[in-house]
Amino acid sequence: MKKVSLLAPGPTPVPPRTLLAMAQPLIHHRSADFQEVIGQVRAGLKKIYQTANEVLVFCSSGTGAMESAVSNLLSPGDKAVAIRGGKFGERWSLLLEAYGCQPVNVDVPWGQAVDPGQVEALLKADPTIKAVYVQALETSTGVDHPIQALAQVTKNTGAVLVVDAVSALGAYSIPTDQWGLDVVISGSQKALMMPPGLAFASIGPKAMELMKKSTLPKFYFSWAKELKNQTENKGAFTSPVTLFMGLLDIFKLIDEVGLETIFAETAVRSQAFKAAVAAWGLELYSKQRPSTALTAVQCPAGIDGQKVVKWLKEKYAIYIAGGQDQAKGKIFRVAHMGYINEFDTLQAISAIEMALKGLGHAFEMGSGVAAAQKIFGEA
Amino acid sequence: MKKVSLLAPGPTPVPPRTLLAMAQPLIHHRSADFQEVIGQVRAGLKKIYQTANEVLVFCSSGTGAMESAVSNLLSPGDKAVAIRGGKFGERWSLLLEAYGCQPVNVDVPWGQAVDPGQVEALLKADPTIKAVYVQALETSTGVDHPIQALAQVTKNTGAVLVVDAVSALGAYSIPTDQWGLDVVISGSQKALMMPPGLAFASIGPKAMELMKKSTLPKFYFSWAKELKNQTENKGAFTSPVTLFMGLLDIFKLIDEVGLETIFAETAVRSQAFKAAVAAWGLELYSKQRPSTALTAVQCPAGIDGQKVVKWLKEKYAIYIAGGQDQAKGKIFRVAHMGYINEFDTLQAISAIEMALKGLGHAFEMGSGVAAAQKIFGEA
Repeated sequence: MKKVSLLAPGPTPVPPRTLLAMAQPLIHHRSADFQEVIGQVRAGLKKIYQTANEVLVFCSSGTGAMESAVSNLLSPGDKAVAIRGGKFGERWSLLLEAYGCQPVNVDVPWGQAVDPGQVEALLKADPTIKAVYVQALETSTGVDHPIQALAQVTKNTGAVLVVDAVSALGAYSIPTDQWGLDVVISGSQKALMMPPGLAFASIGPKAMELMKKSTLPKFYFSWAKELKNQTENKGAFTSPVTLFMGLLDIFKLIDEVGLETIFAETAVRSQAFKAAVAAWGLELYSKQRPSTALTAVQCPAGIDGQKVVKWLKEKYAIYIAGGQDQAKGKIFRVAHMGYINEFDTLQAISAIEMALKGLGHAFEMGSGVAAAQKIFGEA
Repeated sequence: MKKVSLLAPGPTPVPPRTLLAMAQPLIHHRSADFQEVIGQVRAGLKKIYQTANEVLVFCSSGTGAMESAVSNLLSPGDKAVAIRGGKFGERWSLLLEAYGCQPVNVDVPWGQAVDPGQVEALLKADPTIKAVYVQALETSTGVDHPIQALAQVTKNTGAVLVVDAVSALGAYSIPTDQWGLDVVISGSQKALMMPPGLAFASIGPKAMELMKKSTLPKFYFSWAKELKNQTENKGAFTSPVTLFMGLLDIFKLIDEVGLETIFAETAVRSQAFKAAVAAWGLELYSKQRPSTALTAVQCPAGIDGQKVVKWLKEKYAIYIAGGQDQAKGKIFRVAHMGYINEFDTLQAISAIEMALKGLGHAFEMGSGVAAAQKIFGEA
């Protein structure tokens, strides 16, 4: 009998109580009861976003909300910076192209973080640039881009800063208002411990102004339509009722535990896992600003990262992630966010040790487990 | 204690077994197990669509899939017919405008069905028209448009026929291939007995050709991207895992019961409800081609339809729907599709009798119940 264990960077495990909250008979999506639910979900989102800005909810994957941050802010031909330091950075560039905008690509070697000075120089050289699109955490490389510093850069320009925090929000602190982030995108299936299906976008005052000038086509993802409805605790279209019920339960859970505790526990799991990586004599793929939400491990020479992933999946039903595109085969990635505890992390470490040993890496079996236990014991 | 009863035209009640199927621990969205799920869901969709065409699944409300049928088929400035005989017909026109296309609006009085001859004349007069957008069932008026006849009209022209069957598919037979429907849109939360969150689009050969010429911007709703992925039983973006698990269970349930049985039972509930309406001395709002999926009732003079809806909701926690826009206050609507049986319909009839009596309509209490029972007894 194989117990499935999800330790990939999304979807993460959903708490059983939340699954049962979603299994209750449906209520009607146009009712006072459901308006109350939307209102509470909106309040929960503002809390986790640490913002007074409006946070819109869409029924889509995170990509849908990313698209909304292009189609609602820009007009045909507009220039915008896309920070390309991984697969999701590339998505910004593809989205801009799909909408007939001009991406100004900042290519960052995978595993590294963008240099805010480079973005500053670009914006100074070309004041017609309307926006800067970046990831908080580039999930494909495990790198956190310096979004606070980027916000300092965009603050004094005409450009808005749009942050994809799909895999970051809820894993570590992203103080939207304190850092002055104009737009922050997120999704339900990562640190928010929900099934995939909901995506979010916070919209600050500078972005609201840009939105008014945007002429790109939009309908389902129209911010104007959803602002009009969601500020009255309604959905412009039929709301995904069960997913809202689940998210409401998640916010209750987060309130019970406390955001700071969640951030701290995630960081300890990350620290413990990274200690195990060092004990195996391996290096992080993330050469700069490695995230606490997940760890990307550089495979030793001669070991295919995809084989590590496959080993865990086929022998133990443990799901971690491999590398994507140019990192494929070179790395494996393990998440530390969401509804997991130290023993889930130890399980992953233990399973990876057995895989690495089986695939021929020379190291002391149990060394990663011991290094991680030491961190957990001291935490 | 109020038992909630959903008898509005969506979301409809979800079978408890399906709710529990969605409450199982998540499996990974990029796994062989989940590919198997996508494959079975795709097969189930083709069966209910009665088609060999590809049927794509999107995580969105039905409107998202409607939008995809504009953005993937047309180019800026293209002309397309929008049949406006209700709120959802108007949505086609709004979508076309949002994308910078030219809607050729065919305005049909609410409660009536479009005349295919009128569409034929338009297409003959202007061969540059690229598409005809229509509802199978215009949910706001309870009218079924004659989509088989419309397909006969478009067949010999360059225009594709795009049918919004969000509230029709699964309630009565829509033989996509036999009728030659180029694109059929649907959603999860009506006759398919699922929570809202999934939308579908079938794409026939003529639509595939038009798609290749389309230059409107699209990304999340890109048919090309999803065709590439879904034909390999993958999702282009993160699939809403729990909703797929639910839909898989629904297709098992439909297989157990049989599509023909579901259509027949829905039709009997419709017939019984319409007999009750006649017994009350009331008329249908749908003057032509009243649907079997739902009934729209014209309120008697002096009785506000919104008050009937409110009465049922507040006194009995029964959700039916009122009128929208120009029909607001004039009608109420009751669904016959989905996971309901004859006693749910009798409950609605009984509750409406009590509301009508309370609001001052003169009729014999129980006459609607008796008329409906007669139909059910004979079925």
